[in-house]
Amino acid sequence: MKGKETTLQATSVYAPVQDDLYKVEENLSRLAKIEPPWLSAPLQYILDGGGKRLRPALTLLAGRSCTYDFALLLPMSTAVELLHIASLVHDDTVDGSMVRRGKSTVSALWGKNTAVLVGDYLFANAAELVSRTGNVEVMRLFARTLMIMANSQLGESGMAFNLAQTREQYYQRIGGKTASLFSMATETGARLSGAPEETIAALRDYGHNLGLAFQIADDLLDFTGEEIELGKPVGSDLAQGILTLPAIILLERNPDDNPIRSLFQNRGGDEDLRLATEMICNSSIVEESYSVASDFAAQACSRVRHLPDTPTRQALMDLAEYSIQRRT
Amino acid sequence: MKGKETTLQATSVYAPVQDDLYKVEENLSRLAKIEPPWLSAPLQYILDGGGKRLRPALTLLAGRSCTYDFALLLPMSTAVELLHIASLVHDDTVDGSMVRRGKSTVSALWGKNTAVLVGDYLFANAAELVSRTGNVEVMRLFARTLMIMANSQLGESGMAFNLAQTREQYYQRIGGKTASLFSMATETGARLSGAPEETIAALRDYGHNLGLAFQIADDLLDFTGEEIELGKPVGSDLAQGILTLPAIILLERNPDDNPIRSLFQNRGGDEDLRLATEMICNSSIVEESYSVASDFAAQACSRVRHLPDTPTRQALMDLAEYSIQRRT
Repeated sequence: MKGKETTLQATSVYAPVQDDLYKVEENLSRLAKIEPPWLSAPLQYILDGGGKRLRPALTLLAGRSCTYDFALLLPMSTAVELLHIASLVHDDTVDGSMVRRGKSTVSALWGKNTAVLVGDYLFANAAELVSRTGNVEVMRLFARTLMIMANSQLGESGMAFNLAQTREQYYQRIGGKTASLFSMATETGARLSGAPEETIAALRDYGHNLGLAFQIADDLLDFTGEEIELGKPVGSDLAQGILTLPAIILLERNPDDNPIRSLFQNRGGDEDLRLATEMICNSSIVEESYSVASDFAAQACSRVRHLPDTPTRQALMDLAEYSIQRRT
Repeated sequence: MKGKETTLQATSVYAPVQDDLYKVEENLSRLAKIEPPWLSAPLQYILDGGGKRLRPALTLLAGRSCTYDFALLLPMSTAVELLHIASLVHDDTVDGSMVRRGKSTVSALWGKNTAVLVGDYLFANAAELVSRTGNVEVMRLFARTLMIMANSQLGESGMAFNLAQTREQYYQRIGGKTASLFSMATETGARLSGAPEETIAALRDYGHNLGLAFQIADDLLDFTGEEIELGKPVGSDLAQGILTLPAIILLERNPDDNPIRSLFQNRGGDEDLRLATEMICNSSIVEESYSVASDFAAQACSRVRHLPDTPTRQALMDLAEYSIQRRT
C-alpha cells in the first residue's frame, strides 16, 4: 500500500486533477467534523488521510471529458470515495477483519455494532452528496451500484468454501464488488461534464475493465505479497474460503490432488494454505494471473484511445498501467 | 402487534388509500423475486406480508394533499417501507435481537453478516426507488433521513447505561430514530403531489409529532405489554441500558433509591429489572407517559386541522388517535 501510494504519486497520473483531489480530501475531513462524539471519533479515524483516492480521481478525470464543472464533481467524487469507505467498513465487519492495510479496522476499535451504523451513516452521507449534483440519472446510478455491490458481497459469502467456481463466475463477482464502483466513478464524472453518450459509454467501460484489472492484481497480491506490506496474513482470501483467480487456476491445473480441496473440506488448515500459496507463487500462475489483469487493463485503454489526445486521456491510460503493477 | 394490526384494519383509517396500499404490498413482494438465492431467501422472508405498513400509508395519505400521482407515490411509499425494514434489520443485528414481534430476525436465521449486507441492499433498493420519482428534493430528504436515523441509533448505543438523560434528550433521540422517518414519509408524499410549501410543512410536522407519539406508546408498551404479545421479553429496552420515557420519569421521581441505578451499575440484574417494571406499571407513570404521547398526537392533529375537510384529513387524524392506543 505504502509502496503503491508512493508510486502513484510519483507517476503523477493524478496531475490533471491533483489540486482538486486535495479539495476532495479536505471535503472528506470536513465531513468528520460533526457534533456527536460517537460519530465524529470513528469518522475522523477513517476519513482523515490515507487511501489512494483512486476512485474520486477517476471521477475527476472523467469529468474532464467535456465541460469540467467542479461544483458538481466535488460532491460526486467525495461521494464515490465515501461509498468505497462505507463498503470497506461493512466488509471488514462482515469478515471480522481486525486490520486493513496495517491499520486497525473500525469494527476492531469500536466494535461491530458501531461499525454497522457508521457504515450506514457513510452510505447515507454519500447519497446526500450525490443529491447535491441535482442529476437524477447519476443518483439512480449511485443507488444501483450499491445494490450490485451488496449483492456481490453476499454472493461471495454464499459461495465461500465452494470449489465449483469458474473464472467467469469470478469475473462476475469482482465485476459486482469492485468494477461496478469504478465504472460508476467514471460514468458519473463523464455525465456531470455533459459528455455525449458515446464518450460516457467509453468511460464507463474503461472504469469497468480497470476495476477488473485492479481487483485481479489485488487478489494476486494476497498470495505474492508480504504480510507486513499487505497488512494482513498472506493467503487470507483462501483462508476465508474465497476463490480468486490464482486459486481457480491452481484448481484448473490440479483438479484432484489439490491442497485447496482439503483446505475447503476442513474449513481451514495452515499447512494446506501454506502449500497452496507456495504452489501458486512457484509456478507460472502468477504470470498467467498478471497477464489476465494486463488484458483487462489493455481493454480499458482501448476504450479511451479514440478520445481526444489530452493529458487527461494520458493519465487514464497511465492509471491502467499502474493499477496492475506488481507491488512486491 | 396482532391486536394492533387488527385494530388498524378495523378502523379503516387506511380507507382513502387502501387499494393503493395493496399495490405497495405487491411491489414489496416483487422486489424479493430476484435471481440469487442468497438474496431472494432473506428478502422474501422480510418483505412478504406482515407489518402494519403505516409509513407507506402516510406517504399515500399525504400524497392526497394536492394532485395524487400514484406513479410517483408507488416507488416513494415502497421506498419508505424499505428504509424502515432495512433499519430494523440493522438494528436487530446491532442489538443481537433474535426475535421481533414474535418472528425470528434475519440475523437470527441467516447470521449477522448476511443481515448487514441484506440491510445495505435494502437501503440501496430504497434509494433506487426514490430516484424513480425524478424529484431531487425528495432524494435529498431521503438520504438526510437515513443519516439522521443512523446517527440517532449510534447515539442510543453511545448513551446506553447512562443515567444522566433528560426527557429532552429522549425526545431528541426518538425524533431522530423514529419521527424523522415519519416526517419524511409525509413530507415526500406532499411534495410529490405538488402541494404548496405551507401544506408540506404542516404534513411534515404532523409526521414528526405522530412519530414521537407512536414511539412513546411503543416504549411504554415495552413495560406494560405481555411477552407473548410483544414478541420479546418485557423491559428489554431497560435491560439493554436504554432509557425511555417511563424509566426517565421513574428516575425523576426516585432519584436516589432506584432499581434502575443498580441495574445500570451492574449492567443487568433480573431482580432490579422486575422491580423497575413493577414500579412503573403500578404507578401513575403509565398514565403520565400515555398523556405525553397523547399530547404529541394532539400536536400532530392540530397541524392538519386547517387542511380541507376530506376523508384523507380524517384518516390522518384517526391515525394519530390509533397510533397511541394502548395495546394491552
